[in-house]
Amino acid sequence: MTLFELAARLGLECRGEDIELKGIGTLEHAGPSELSFLANPKYAEFLPKTQAGAVIVHPEYADKVQRALISMQPYQDFGRALQLFAKKKGVFQGVSPLAFIHPDAKIGENATIYPFACIESGVVIDDNVVIYSGCYLGPGVHVGSRSVLYPNVVLMDDTHIDEGVIIHAGAVLGADGFGFSKTEAGIEKIPQTGNVQIGRNVEIGANTAIDRAVLDSTTVGDGTKIDNLVQLGHNVRVGKNTFIVSQVGISGSTHIGDGCTLAGQVGVAGHLHIGNNVTIGPQSGVAKDIADSSTVGGSPAVDYATFMKTLALMPKYPDIFKRLSKLEKALAALETEQNEREKA
Amino acid sequence: MTLFELAARLGLECRGEDIELKGIGTLEHAGPSELSFLANPKYAEFLPKTQAGAVIVHPEYADKVQRALISMQPYQDFGRALQLFAKKKGVFQGVSPLAFIHPDAKIGENATIYPFACIESGVVIDDNVVIYSGCYLGPGVHVGSRSVLYPNVVLMDDTHIDEGVIIHAGAVLGADGFGFSKTEAGIEKIPQTGNVQIGRNVEIGANTAIDRAVLDSTTVGDGTKIDNLVQLGHNVRVGKNTFIVSQVGISGSTHIGDGCTLAGQVGVAGHLHIGNNVTIGPQSGVAKDIADSSTVGGSPAVDYATFMKTLALMPKYPDIFKRLSKLEKALAALETEQNEREKA
Amino acid sequence: MTLFELAARLGLECRGEDIELKGIGTLEHAGPSELSFLANPKYAEFLPKTQAGAVIVHPEYADKVQRALISMQPYQDFGRALQLFAKKKGVFQGVSPLAFIHPDAKIGENATIYPFACIESGVVIDDNVVIYSGCYLGPGVHVGSRSVLYPNVVLMDDTHIDEGVIIHAGAVLGADGFGFSKTEAGIEKIPQTGNVQIGRNVEIGANTAIDRAVLDSTTVGDGTKIDNLVQLGHNVRVGKNTFIVSQVGISGSTHIGDGCTLAGQVGVAGHLHIGNNVTIGPQSGVAKDIADSSTVGGSPAVDYATFMKTLALMPKYPDIFKRLSKLEKALAALETEQNEREKA
Repeated sequence: MTLFELAARLGLECRGEDIELKGIGTLEHAGPSELSFLANPKYAEFLPKTQAGAVIVHPEYADKVQRALISMQPYQDFGRALQLFAKKKGVFQGVSPLAFIHPDAKIGENATIYPFACIESGVVIDDNVVIYSGCYLGPGVHVGSRSVLYPNVVLMDDTHIDEGVIIHAGAVLGADGFGFSKTEAGIEKIPQTGNVQIGRNVEIGANTAIDRAVLDSTTVGDGTKIDNLVQLGHNVRVGKNTFIVSQVGISGSTHIGDGCTLAGQVGVAGHLHIGNNVTIGPQSGVAKDIADSSTVGGSPAVDYATFMKTLALMPKYPDIFKRLSKLEKALAALETEQNEREKA
Repeated sequence: MTLFELAARLGLECRGEDIELKGIGTLEHAGPSELSFLANPKYAEFLPKTQAGAVIVHPEYADKVQRALISMQPYQDFGRALQLFAKKKGVFQGVSPLAFIHPDAKIGENATIYPFACIESGVVIDDNVVIYSGCYLGPGVHVGSRSVLYPNVVLMDDTHIDEGVIIHAGAVLGADGFGFSKTEAGIEKIPQTGNVQIGRNVEIGANTAIDRAVLDSTTVGDGTKIDNLVQLGHNVRVGKNTFIVSQVGISGSTHIGDGCTLAGQVGVAGHLHIGNNVTIGPQSGVAKDIADSSTVGGSPAVDYATFMKTLALMPKYPDIFKRLSKLEKALAALETEQNEREKA
Repeated sequence: MTLFELAARLGLECRGEDIELKGIGTLEHAGPSELSFLANPKYAEFLPKTQAGAVIVHPEYADKVQRALISMQPYQDFGRALQLFAKKKGVFQGVSPLAFIHPDAKIGENATIYPFACIESGVVIDDNVVIYSGCYLGPGVHVGSRSVLYPNVVLMDDTHIDEGVIIHAGAVLGADGFGFSKTEAGIEKIPQTGNVQIGRNVEIGANTAIDRAVLDSTTVGDGTKIDNLVQLGHNVRVGKNTFIVSQVGISGSTHIGDGCTLAGQVGVAGHLHIGNNVTIGPQSGVAKDIADSSTVGGSPAVDYATFMKTLALMPKYPDIFKRLSKLEKALAALETEQNEREKA
């Protein structure tokens, strides 16, 4: 693809001569036939030295490079350019005779099923689905069209995946929720008889675990993106277009709204209601309901402004004790003086 | 099953006419031929509107529903009812010719082994065990009767699993512990030559990792329940009937007693002794031994009452600085006055 | 092996008569034909009661045991002894006809490939590599000589593994980084077109996830050891000989230096620079760059001395409020007295 062709496809103004582009690289490493981009001003220092053939930049940087694709949203346009250059993952095609597919499973048109996938009775796989090696699809599982299951993904029985979903390697959907009751006879398992339902265009990270519901469904709404090593307990419901970053844990029966962001390593207690457009800072511990459009931080999590104020005060805490001691001495001195004067 | 039959099997009093029951649902979603339950008073608001054919309730709610199964322990009885309705997971039966089973492995009666399981030399699998696709059982592994290994479970060499154990998908038992020594030649690996031993009726969550011991065994006692994405380091010993919630990490050589509960995302340092019946609050960081029957919270974890008191004071901290400044000014004023009077 | 032979091979002085040694055990459990060791003084209490045939000990303990191998570094020498006694894991040999290997993949001399491994086009596997069952190696993957991939390891396309690397079961390298852009049309995925590069003699724990770069590479330097359930985001770069303990999460584009130690459950924000020889305490949350040779703790992480001072003061916080109230009352009393005197 040439630079001018790319500019036309992205609808961006181009400054400089046309060249052939063979790929995309960072400012630091891109070569003269590669495109690069500047989105985070932190990396502007690389601009003067870059070898990149052309750079997607905000107008204010357009003069700083030999060839510029001028964009008001360089990161988004970089993402769009990358889609044009990205190569397809995996090379296997068709349904492998080395997969185990139960005779009554229904496989759609143009599906790809790798060797050593195991597909049980009653599974329905729609068109253009890709299922890598080592995946297990339990009885009654449904995978919507264009979805991709990377290697060793496990979908336990009755899991329902909508269209355009990406599930990264090793993720487990539909394992039993953590439900037990203590009886006189000991600890009894509560059978987990619900399922997991994943909406359209959801992405789920590597080695993430989403438990099946005890009854009804554990659900993830359309467009939500979940990172690696995340835990969603039984009967959790996550809304639409929400981001859940790596190593977050959400306890059973908690509902998370639409448009939220949960930063890395957040923990949320069970049976809570987190509203829409809520942002939760990294490592926070959420123990209470959170209203729509709130931003919270800390463990236990509080309003973010309060949290930041508390953090800002922390370095001053040791000083408190010095100030208290000084006050106590001065006051004692005054009292002594007073007493002596009274005696006099 | 009819409602009256169910009442008889559970030994519960029934109010209302008999009906046919086809399943179990939540108060919110159950239909007229489904059973439901009320265990957490938080959900009592759904009672007047439920369509459920019958509801397991505490006596105080018996009048609020059309048909009631009256229970002093609604959650336990719901669990027992669910066991009567739960359908078996998976439909594969027998030993698949698509599994790899070393000729000297011993497979018990009525065992189920899915395609693409890999079972090495010297493995012993007892009666009625179920091993799903993608599991690996290393040399010398022993799996006790009625145990279930869900897909892609890995049991490295010499792992010993007792009877009635459930291991969810992707769990890894017996990987090497994290043991190295720094020498002049660089970082040397300490071979991890012990194993992992799991007691009766233990349940282990999806993608959990339990490392083999450097010497002797990493052990989990009878009846203990471990959630998803938990980490147990080498030579950890967990007692009986202990609950370890999701994303907990326990460092090497730490011993956890019987009847404990470790809430989500707790971290415990190495070489510690945690007593029996200890409860550790969510996200706590445990850096010291804990005596029997303690409840602790915070990072570093302290006695729970102290932890809660500290949390309750936190919102008042910003106020400290205002009070200190006010005191300092007032005291300075007094001192000035005093000095002036003395001069006068 | 006899005790005297072992002493010769380790280059250690031996006290006591020669015996046959059949294995290694802990002081608590070793029998009369087993070797043991004392490295952590915490376990010295087991010395008088041990049944071990011989013990590797520091000179100060040499008189306390029947037979001693005297060492200035008992833990390192225990590790070396263990290497002499450790048995090889796994018994399968050669390339299984039950593996799927693309015809144009190149397999080195003396490689072991278990059943149900799936190896795509363009993969290069060097000599003496061991690949267990259920592993997936995507197009263009390269595995250096003597490396071991335990069961169900996933290496997505173009992952590069150097020599002598150990990857434990269920680890996923090269899944897509968590990269999206919010556009007017909704959330768009940023294709992740870089790869993962792992240096020599690295060890990676079970169920750990290391994401591929958006561009360029996510890299782990020679000799670095990563524990279980760790998350490395896209474009993270980790230096040489660094230890990353279980459940640590490192966000995208952060660089970690050489010789660092990140304790369990640490979280590090994105786009940061962590210097060489940095130590980060357990559960810390790192939100800023850290200079070489620093030790930090807490969330947000601060200099360790400051962190410890803050922790030490915490139990005194409730006292602050009592002292403040007392001061306020005393001061009010003084002021009242003053006012009365002035009136008089």
